[in-house]
Amino acid sequence: MKIEQLQQDISLKRALEKGNEAQLQTVRQVIEDVRTQGDVAVRMYTKKWDGFTLNNLKVTTEEIATAVDTFDRELYQDLQEAAKNIRAYHEQQVRQGFTMPLADGSYLAQKVTALDAVGLYVPGGTAAYPSSVLMNVIPAQVAGVERIVITSPANQEGLLPQGVLVAAHLLGITEIYKVGGAQAIAALAYGTESIQAVDKITGPGNIFVALAKREVFGEVAIDMIAGPSEIAIIADETAYADEVAADLLSQAEHDPLSCAILVTTSIKLAQEVVQQVEQQLTQLPREAIARQAIEQLGKVYVTATIEEAIKAVNSLAPEHLEIMTEHAEEVAAKIKHAGGIFIGRYSSEPVGDYFAGTNHVLPTNSTARFASGLSVDDFIKKSSVVYYSQKTWQENAPKIARLARLEGLEGHARAVESRGWKK
Amino acid sequence: MKIEQLQQDISLKRALEKGNEAQLQTVRQVIEDVRTQGDVAVRMYTKKWDGFTLNNLKVTTEEIATAVDTFDRELYQDLQEAAKNIRAYHEQQVRQGFTMPLADGSYLAQKVTALDAVGLYVPGGTAAYPSSVLMNVIPAQVAGVERIVITSPANQEGLLPQGVLVAAHLLGITEIYKVGGAQAIAALAYGTESIQAVDKITGPGNIFVALAKREVFGEVAIDMIAGPSEIAIIADETAYADEVAADLLSQAEHDPLSCAILVTTSIKLAQEVVQQVEQQLTQLPREAIARQAIEQLGKVYVTATIEEAIKAVNSLAPEHLEIMTEHAEEVAAKIKHAGGIFIGRYSSEPVGDYFAGTNHVLPTNSTARFASGLSVDDFIKKSSVVYYSQKTWQENAPKIARLARLEGLEGHARAVESRGWKK
Repeated sequence: MKIEQLQQDISLKRALEKGNEAQLQTVRQVIEDVRTQGDVAVRMYTKKWDGFTLNNLKVTTEEIATAVDTFDRELYQDLQEAAKNIRAYHEQQVRQGFTMPLADGSYLAQKVTALDAVGLYVPGGTAAYPSSVLMNVIPAQVAGVERIVITSPANQEGLLPQGVLVAAHLLGITEIYKVGGAQAIAALAYGTESIQAVDKITGPGNIFVALAKREVFGEVAIDMIAGPSEIAIIADETAYADEVAADLLSQAEHDPLSCAILVTTSIKLAQEVVQQVEQQLTQLPREAIARQAIEQLGKVYVTATIEEAIKAVNSLAPEHLEIMTEHAEEVAAKIKHAGGIFIGRYSSEPVGDYFAGTNHVLPTNSTARFASGLSVDDFIKKSSVVYYSQKTWQENAPKIARLARLEGLEGHARAVESRGWKK
Repeated sequence: MKIEQLQQDISLKRALEKGNEAQLQTVRQVIEDVRTQGDVAVRMYTKKWDGFTLNNLKVTTEEIATAVDTFDRELYQDLQEAAKNIRAYHEQQVRQGFTMPLADGSYLAQKVTALDAVGLYVPGGTAAYPSSVLMNVIPAQVAGVERIVITSPANQEGLLPQGVLVAAHLLGITEIYKVGGAQAIAALAYGTESIQAVDKITGPGNIFVALAKREVFGEVAIDMIAGPSEIAIIADETAYADEVAADLLSQAEHDPLSCAILVTTSIKLAQEVVQQVEQQLTQLPREAIARQAIEQLGKVYVTATIEEAIKAVNSLAPEHLEIMTEHAEEVAAKIKHAGGIFIGRYSSEPVGDYFAGTNHVLPTNSTARFASGLSVDDFIKKSSVVYYSQKTWQENAPKIARLARLEGLEGHARAVESRGWKK
């Protein structure tokens, strides 16, 4: 980890992971097979790639009960409390439509409705996180989605990770399938005999899952394609180097491509953080991953002023931003682009990953310039409503007809005028 | 146009237009060339496809002034009034963030910020609609977007459509480029010497534009890929056949692939509408287009009850829905999936296309199941905010650390615990 003088904007944007041609062809074949052959294709690809014979696609109530009964009680309560916090925050996001009265009894309105059905993809292996289940399911529940489905690849014994089943149970989700990969995405998008199609698919996955989501985009809605995790920290001389280093490493341990950046006005802090990162790295179970991340995309920048640091961070648009400075709230107020903002010494980023209530599905790779974390908004849609009274129609019909004719759409003009044909 | 008894759900979902391999390769080449060669590539492709030599990419103030000076005064006022209505409706969509106090001085919040820069693609030729400029630009302005760019292919004299320039002028937009096709999308996504990159691209276009938008999706945000227009009408015996027919044709005249569907409880109305459609078709300037649409995707369904009609329309999730029945508002309340809902006899769909204030960019091809019309929400993003006090941290750190360790992320646990290392 090197200390650099910051000269200009920070840009660490990485190329979109689009896979190679062979991967794309594979994914297209899988989607086509699942679309045309349904469960047969799902079973065939599961045997081929996940290595077990998929009889019942759906997880049984017994499997869930076993997972819950053998789960640590204290952790179960922790998950429950986290779920409560996440629900409380997301309930603040609920929106009603509105009605806007016009003259003469006319009105415009916006009507908000929940999606009917959504599917959450949970990746397999070590990345099968109970917290992901909470973060994806709760916003959909708060939005009022009636049918929420989870699908995830099982291990070679045909079992799903215990934590995932427990988290699902805790939220009352019972429709869970042992299907992973592109075949899962295809099943959710087009439906099979066993899995009814959904309207939106969320959740991360490997390159095949990401490519499949891109392919079905438009048929169904998808969330953003997530990239490796990122953290940026703005700190001044009031911050503690060991805490800054620990927070940088908390993201670095996610992925060799994770990005951990400190922007500070204090050269002393910068130097101490570099030392602390090295020292803590040697103690970290996931040292190998975190070290790669720190070597590749770990940066410490020194700026003359906090204003410069703010500008740099806005140019980066990081997934996570911590602010450990004097007057941290004033700094936060000047941040335009960041997925999640963590203010002050005690708001370490993992607080938001697990527990505080905000969502941990956040925009990566500088997409915080235009994208938001997962929220209730992702599970609702809005219809516009127009009611024109006779009088409002009468007053405005000539204008509307003129505008339609300006665009060469005579049929539009006549439709509006037709209400006067019989007088 | 035939009358059918409705037996089940209506499904008119069309395959996504994904182009062919040659088109995709062309688009990828264009994007790569614009990304690496900038303006040179933009000029080259403009010469090749739009047939004129592009010197200044940007429209001059003189060109705008000429367009405005020679524009019909009455129409200018109509556009102004439409813009005012559209602005008023979209101002209702503006949202503030929120702050959610927790115990001990801690809080969570949601911060809403506008996108920095957006680009509107306006297609060339007869589809260059001033109303599209209003519908795309105004929500971005209401959201607070600072930089709004329009780009559109010029004709062989190097001129943009007058209506587009006038609508842009009326809204105070001055950054307008004479660039069309995939090269325009690439320039907006990656930037060139003349055109700075934007954060989001909206607006319809031909297959090359649609493919290019799909390709750059993720680098920048895009709106939905729009399909052919659709209208569904629920009507009972109180509706007038000539008006229903005129409204069906108003969408049919858009595109040979447009879809126009009547669902009615009245066999008499159904019969009269079929006659009226035929009669009005022969009088329509765009008869050829509308006739193809009516023949291919024009349908009249008769149902026993209004409830059945509602169910059918919810299964269709049409872009536009008109309700011409007794108690039309009660029917509207039961609609779950539709882009725009038009209630009662005087709310003919073109009222919303041009004038009432709601947006005319609406989800097509059954995507109203999960998507919404263009709105202020498309031009803002939300950051989550966490502030934990020392006391809140102290109380919750053990739980957060346990949850992190459950997921095998020791670095996350240590980050949270690090705040206690020095006591």
